[in-house]
Amino acid sequence: MVYTSSMRILGIDPGIGRTGWGIIDVEHGKFIVKDYGCIETFKEQNIGERLQELYEALQKVLEQYHPDALSIEELFFNTNTSTAMIVGQARGIVLLAATQHAIPITSYTPLQVKVAVTGYGRADKKQIGQMVKTILKLTIIPKLDDTADALAIALTHAFSYKMN
Amino acid sequence: MVYTSSMRILGIDPGIGRTGWGIIDVEHGKFIVKDYGCIETFKEQNIGERLQELYEALQKVLEQYHPDALSIEELFFNTNTSTAMIVGQARGIVLLAATQHAIPITSYTPLQVKVAVTGYGRADKKQIGQMVKTILKLTIIPKLDDTADALAIALTHAFSYKMN
Repeated sequence: MVYTSSMRILGIDPGIGRTGWGIIDVEHGKFIVKDYGCIETFKEQNIGERLQELYEALQKVLEQYHPDALSIEELFFNTNTSTAMIVGQARGIVLLAATQHAIPITSYTPLQVKVAVTGYGRADKKQIGQMVKTILKLTIIPKLDDTADALAIALTHAFSYKMN
Repeated sequence: MVYTSSMRILGIDPGIGRTGWGIIDVEHGKFIVKDYGCIETFKEQNIGERLQELYEALQKVLEQYHPDALSIEELFFNTNTSTAMIVGQARGIVLLAATQHAIPITSYTPLQVKVAVTGYGRADKKQIGQMVKTILKLTIIPKLDDTADALAIALTHAFSYKMN
């Protein structure tokens, strides 16, 4: 198969308890959602076990869908260093897994995602979810915030790809 | 071989540019430095490549020395969220690699490390390096701060193990 004008994007919203993911294909300028979901790990596990579970679940997604690009959220600025450290650990696992599969990584700030998806830098989670549903022609907004966010992050890269 | 009163500890001071590591054996109450070093990654690489390089270098250390325990620094509190996120990414890789080798992980705060090694909660890096040299009977203080810190972190776990 030769994809000249198409690209498969994996969007990831990383976290230690929940990592949302979404796969979007860009085909001849159209966006097609292939799949999305949420990788959950539980507090009863220690941090190493949770990261390992995340790593293994990511491997399955990567091996099933072979994305051409990873789109991931850049940073939180409105949180404390302890939370940033914990989220960073999960984000590191995502970056490692993508690199091991030779998938190029692009990071977008929350502001870039909001503007790309809603055209509005102060959009809230509900507005983002609604726009993700509309743009991707989903019948419902994905239940978990992290999943809708992951699709929004994938969509941000899709818009950027389409423009270029 | 049966080690009843001995344990091999890997101490890690994680970072994206430099990750210090040190291996200490506790044998019949004595501390023996087996090896130490620093894994460096370079700014010219992207973040995914740097994390992958760290991951692969850690695998080599783990496969060469088969430590029984990982001792790692808990958190920085005196830094910004952006730095915490970046360090968190490297820390996540260390925790993943250890868990993949079924090595139990113990975290210590910088304060715990200072108190364990120097008896003084406000010790600076130079004082820590000096005490690491003295306790471990090294001929010199390891040149790179991260390496001396990694040995201090390993030593903290060694003291804790010796007491129990």
